[in-house]
Amino acid sequence: MPRINAVIAGLIRPLIEPHLPDDVEPHWFMTKDDAFALAPRAEIGWFDMYDKKDVAEAITRATSMKWLNSIYAGVDGMPLDLLGERGVTFTNGAGINAITIAEYVLMGMLTIAKGYRDVVRAQMRHEWLIDSPGKVELYGSKALLLGYGAIGKLVEERLKAFAVEVTIVRRTPGPNTLTPDQWRDRLGEFDWVILAVPATAETERMIGAAELAAMKSDAVLVNIARGTVVDQNALIEALSAKRIGGAFLDVTTPEPLPPGHPLWGVETAHISMHLSGRAQSLMFKRSAERFLANLQRYRSGQPLENQVDLTLGY
Amino acid sequence: MPRINAVIAGLIRPLIEPHLPDDVEPHWFMTKDDAFALAPRAEIGWFDMYDKKDVAEAITRATSMKWLNSIYAGVDGMPLDLLGERGVTFTNGAGINAITIAEYVLMGMLTIAKGYRDVVRAQMRHEWLIDSPGKVELYGSKALLLGYGAIGKLVEERLKAFAVEVTIVRRTPGPNTLTPDQWRDRLGEFDWVILAVPATAETERMIGAAELAAMKSDAVLVNIARGTVVDQNALIEALSAKRIGGAFLDVTTPEPLPPGHPLWGVETAHISMHLSGRAQSLMFKRSAERFLANLQRYRSGQPLENQVDLTLGY
Repeated sequence: MPRINAVIAGLIRPLIEPHLPDDVEPHWFMTKDDAFALAPRAEIGWFDMYDKKDVAEAITRATSMKWLNSIYAGVDGMPLDLLGERGVTFTNGAGINAITIAEYVLMGMLTIAKGYRDVVRAQMRHEWLIDSPGKVELYGSKALLLGYGAIGKLVEERLKAFAVEVTIVRRTPGPNTLTPDQWRDRLGEFDWVILAVPATAETERMIGAAELAAMKSDAVLVNIARGTVVDQNALIEALSAKRIGGAFLDVTTPEPLPPGHPLWGVETAHISMHLSGRAQSLMFKRSAERFLANLQRYRSGQPLENQVDLTLGY
Repeated sequence: MPRINAVIAGLIRPLIEPHLPDDVEPHWFMTKDDAFALAPRAEIGWFDMYDKKDVAEAITRATSMKWLNSIYAGVDGMPLDLLGERGVTFTNGAGINAITIAEYVLMGMLTIAKGYRDVVRAQMRHEWLIDSPGKVELYGSKALLLGYGAIGKLVEERLKAFAVEVTIVRRTPGPNTLTPDQWRDRLGEFDWVILAVPATAETERMIGAAELAAMKSDAVLVNIARGTVVDQNALIEALSAKRIGGAFLDVTTPEPLPPGHPLWGVETAHISMHLSGRAQSLMFKRSAERFLANLQRYRSGQPLENQVDLTLGY
């Protein structure tokens, strides 16, 4: 007899259903209205939908939920306080997309270093360029890496293979490490400032006008965290005034960026539309495997892996 | 008293002149006609010009030359037989551009993996894409690396940091190595086929219709060697018929590719206009340092480094 009701996004069904144990009764949803209607029955909820507001609404309605799962790493926009009050365990997808995002970071840096966007445009015109629009080598350059989770660590490994000198920011002092109270004073030393932090109150607008002004005039900001980590108006101003060299922005405020938004037209802003995590085909597979392993733990009363700290927000 | 006449391209003058010993008398040229006129006086010649035919002509006229230097790695188009007959020592720039070229290879692979060219085009339209046009991870993919010189080795290091499984081709058997008579039969195993070989009689058209047909239907060919290494008509046919996934072509036949050439319009051909080696600003500095070190050896009768084997052609 099934005893555990699980409400799960229908998109993941083909990868989950064949492996569900008998004591779990799945309820698949394809629309937000189905999700809202099914939510109250969920002991286990997996409510990922395109619009975060819908996910938050379904969570709010899931008053019997004990375990919430998500394919995504970012938990901003989720009602963490409410989950805390209700004693819900929240497992997320931290690390699932880390590989492709780390690859995307290197791609972004390399394309900016070599001016590759102008090469693409030249090919569209069938025009053979005589010299490279970008003449920067990653080799020997210096990167400041803010955020040292799954993505940050993979980015660091890859940067080191390119002989980039990587400085990380974390609370524990160590070699090539700056503490959170040190990095701002050292911003002028780096060719690359890479944001891979979670979106929390602490990281909100951590890069503003002052930080941008402290960067080298040819430095590049790489943001694969969240748009809110950067004061976007200050960034647009710094890029337009050429106070920094450029920005590779996988994330913006808002998303999607509306057609008339001024950021679109900033020539040194390279906008990749939050695609970094989507540039792979294994996310569903990896996420399903992780969920099924956690489901096994859940049924046997063991602690779940990849739990979100509801207070820290990651 | 100066005793050694050196005829040197004027572009490199600022980096050489301050460091020349007294017994070397430099003759700087800015035009090909100057180069031709000065050539007969050269004991040392450094004749790099944009057009290889002009370089070959200057070399032919340098009948007293004992040492020929070049900033470039490729020596195709140079009169190697003539240099051999005259007993000229030829030092080249192998490795000088290897770093930036290796970086370019990774950039090319990543941009194709993630479909980044379509992201660039979408930004030009101010359009926010909902899904990634490319969904390939380098992670766990397999690359066949043909050519294991300075560039090949740097490419291998970087690929390994991305957890790409690299197989190299060389005469000496070893782990992850195929010999020149083995790789063709194994072409169907690789996601990436990377050409980093020198342009010699042996490598001319080493990738033709048969090799392209043996590749996986989603495999990508990366050519940073020379256009002549590939049968370009066969490649255009294979790409147009979608028999392989794509090609990243830093080199083509001819160069520059004329405006009306059919290769321009092949959607899965990514043409980077032989810019990979130019995407850095340290080439002249590195080349000058190498020349000056060799000049010291030359004056003291020691063997020069980075000599071209005039028979092998690299």
